[in-house]
Amino acid sequence: MGLDGDHFCLELENGTKPGGNDLGLEKEPKTIAIEDAVKVLLQGLGEDVNREGIKKTPLRVAKALREGTGGYKQKVKDIVQGALFPEVGLHDRVGHAGGAGGLVIVRDLDMFSYCESCLLPFQVKCHVGYVPSGEQVVGLSKLSRVADIFAKRLQDPQRLADEVCSALHLGINPAGVAVILQCWHIHFPNLEPVFHDAKHQGWIKVLVSSGSGVFENENADAWCDFLGLLKFRGVTADKILTMDSEKKSWCPSYSSSVAKGSSELIAPNPRMVAAIASILGSLGEDPSRKELLETPSHFVRWLMNFQNTELEMKFNGFTCGIKDVLKPNGECSHNHQQLHAELSLSFWSQCEHHLLPFHGVVHIGYLCPEGFNPIEKSLLQSIVHFYGFKLQVQERLTRQIAETVSSILGGDTMVVVEANHTCMISRGIEKLGSNTATIAVLGQFSTDPAIRALFLERIPSSTTSGMF
Amino acid sequence: MGLDGDHFCLELENGTKPGGNDLGLEKEPKTIAIEDAVKVLLQGLGEDVNREGIKKTPLRVAKALREGTGGYKQKVKDIVQGALFPEVGLHDRVGHAGGAGGLVIVRDLDMFSYCESCLLPFQVKCHVGYVPSGEQVVGLSKLSRVADIFAKRLQDPQRLADEVCSALHLGINPAGVAVILQCWHIHFPNLEPVFHDAKHQGWIKVLVSSGSGVFENENADAWCDFLGLLKFRGVTADKILTMDSEKKSWCPSYSSSVAKGSSELIAPNPRMVAAIASILGSLGEDPSRKELLETPSHFVRWLMNFQNTELEMKFNGFTCGIKDVLKPNGECSHNHQQLHAELSLSFWSQCEHHLLPFHGVVHIGYLCPEGFNPIEKSLLQSIVHFYGFKLQVQERLTRQIAETVSSILGGDTMVVVEANHTCMISRGIEKLGSNTATIAVLGQFSTDPAIRALFLERIPSSTTSGMF
Repeated sequence: MGLDGDHFCLELENGTKPGGNDLGLEKEPKTIAIEDAVKVLLQGLGEDVNREGIKKTPLRVAKALREGTGGYKQKVKDIVQGALFPEVGLHDRVGHAGGAGGLVIVRDLDMFSYCESCLLPFQVKCHVGYVPSGEQVVGLSKLSRVADIFAKRLQDPQRLADEVCSALHLGINPAGVAVILQCWHIHFPNLEPVFHDAKHQGWIKVLVSSGSGVFENENADAWCDFLGLLKFRGVTADKILTMDSEKKSWCPSYSSSVAKGSSELIAPNPRMVAAIASILGSLGEDPSRKELLETPSHFVRWLMNFQNTELEMKFNGFTCGIKDVLKPNGECSHNHQQLHAELSLSFWSQCEHHLLPFHGVVHIGYLCPEGFNPIEKSLLQSIVHFYGFKLQVQERLTRQIAETVSSILGGDTMVVVEANHTCMISRGIEKLGSNTATIAVLGQFSTDPAIRALFLERIPSSTTSGMF
Repeated sequence: MGLDGDHFCLELENGTKPGGNDLGLEKEPKTIAIEDAVKVLLQGLGEDVNREGIKKTPLRVAKALREGTGGYKQKVKDIVQGALFPEVGLHDRVGHAGGAGGLVIVRDLDMFSYCESCLLPFQVKCHVGYVPSGEQVVGLSKLSRVADIFAKRLQDPQRLADEVCSALHLGINPAGVAVILQCWHIHFPNLEPVFHDAKHQGWIKVLVSSGSGVFENENADAWCDFLGLLKFRGVTADKILTMDSEKKSWCPSYSSSVAKGSSELIAPNPRMVAAIASILGSLGEDPSRKELLETPSHFVRWLMNFQNTELEMKFNGFTCGIKDVLKPNGECSHNHQQLHAELSLSFWSQCEHHLLPFHGVVHIGYLCPEGFNPIEKSLLQSIVHFYGFKLQVQERLTRQIAETVSSILGGDTMVVVEANHTCMISRGIEKLGSNTATIAVLGQFSTDPAIRALFLERIPSSTTSGMF
């Protein structure tokens, strides 16, 4: 394909000034206050806030947090108004085609929200239904827009469902509203068990519901119709959490505190805690609201998993133990090289551009002489975690793992990292299904496409299929 | 759940003025020009532009079209600038971890674009890769943002891929860029064959690619790595269209013209054609660009499928033939009633709020006395098409089908309509995976939850799984 320089320039000249809103947002006192607070967090992590990769992180985080919680500023009435359409034949009688017209359901609305307990985003699949009355129906897209107003706040799944239900009921005055939310929250890494435990790759799931009017009673017949049209999405009545049950166990920030026992927990850095509390205030929340009291500590504990560590020392610690790794096994070694592949090693990391987690799997391929034992999986997993648990970018993580493995083996290494980036889900672009793969190649892998292809073929298909 | 009126009011009072941009957009001369053109289209369809359901349609269409083609106003440079990060160790040498760092791929970016040949939106799954050079990487979200600038224009899949590739190459100056797009375009209904033919439920798919630098040669090794990490998404080299092949066959507006032969085509209403041409101009396009010359005619032909028809006459035509439908079969009839279900009848319709297609399947359930023959499928399919091919809302469509079937049978009817709304995909909210179900119930179905559940259980799971 030819590159058309003129065409590119044309784009630039034709453009009008974009991001006019952004410039306004950047200068608002609340944005600047959040920026300052994020600098405190970065310093608490042992980072140099003027480092090239992170010097704009405070602004990025501030803008993203304010946009991602923009629901505090939106009015339900403005969205619903003008979107109520008269439909002849939709009378007040419920349950007739010529009456209330039966049920209207919008399914599979993908959105995200922010967990009020730990400030991390969580993913939501929202199903909304209502029974029209009073000869009017609402524009279908408004169900999604109203749900989004409440999602873009600090939330708990049940409260989110209740608020969406209540707002729709008051906004469109139907015979009833039903809301079902499937929510996914990332696990928190527990540094010790994560080295041996694969469960941290999964997600914490919860299913909640809320109903008004003909759906107010959870045993109402109307629920059967609604659930009947959701059953293929894995939604069934028995999986729905009853209100207040396990209320505290949804966010892993609670369970990880409980697991360790409060006496064992290291007290979080008070400057960082105060910084988070000030961010909550800047977003329009009351940091003294009961549900938010522990949020600053939870977020700081999460963040401290990714503290800047004494790189050289630990790295030497790894390499010291490595000399004995590659030794001949019983058989005689030839000059033939064998491809070894260690696939789907889990990793956790924190995006240094957005201060949000990215996580997924690492695949490591290397050549070693026939007759030699492959590197133990646990050592490779340790290398992966060592480079993962810090502020990172995926490209660097990939390269660092490749270089370290290569330094053990003396050359021929290929590393593929497949990751879901929370920042791609929740910040700005909202590409919920997207994921990122990066490749680093050294030695023979950089010159031989056939050996690369051989390794790529071994990578399983489902490693980054996300949560759905 | 209790409804909290105070809470709702609080939302309203706390809100700042929303939609500030919208109000500006509404008053711009280009928006008003599109509104006027849309009124011409509605009149051409035989509609009363002051009818309650459609009186705001011109404004909705104008705003949505201008927002959906906002890419004409955006600059690549503004997006990429400030998002290039230095990465130590990423030298100019390609193919090393310590060199160009290997490949970076962002997969499964869901977006939509507008077909330049018929003005309908088409859905895009975009996979972008690049090989960094010059010790810098670009923020991952920028790959998506740049792709979106070019998607939000009138496009052809190959041109979209080329423009994204070219812009990224010039913007981030890497060793190479690779773009692969999976595109889905809705079929056009051909009124005659659609009555017998199920293929119109599907989508027209196309797979295109574009490459620069190390990807410029389509046989380059770099492509193997890229495709190796896309194979599980159904992307393989042999499925990719080579440039210029079948260039004209992607959009069904071409093939439907060719199929009928130009002599058989009714000349489209010249006022409507002129209105579309003026819309193209208002969006910032040149209506005399070669690829856009036939677009107004194509869009008008598509639209005329949904012309307002002489409702009474045709309806009488249906009911006249219906008297003989329900007759006893050979066996003696009892008083027992049997549930009959006709599932997954395809339908097409045009959303009267957005002037965009929605389509999917209709499931019809009814009770008829044991010993009577069920209604023929072809008659039910005719009823579905009769109410589908006009400006509609899904709630009304559901009710009309239910009432018509009920008038044949004398009562006990249930209708479920499952639909994908193009307006939910392309207008404003961009909820690509969402779909809508509506229910209408008459007679025994409105009072007996068990019989409703029995019918809902028969509905197959995959009818609205969308195109992915």
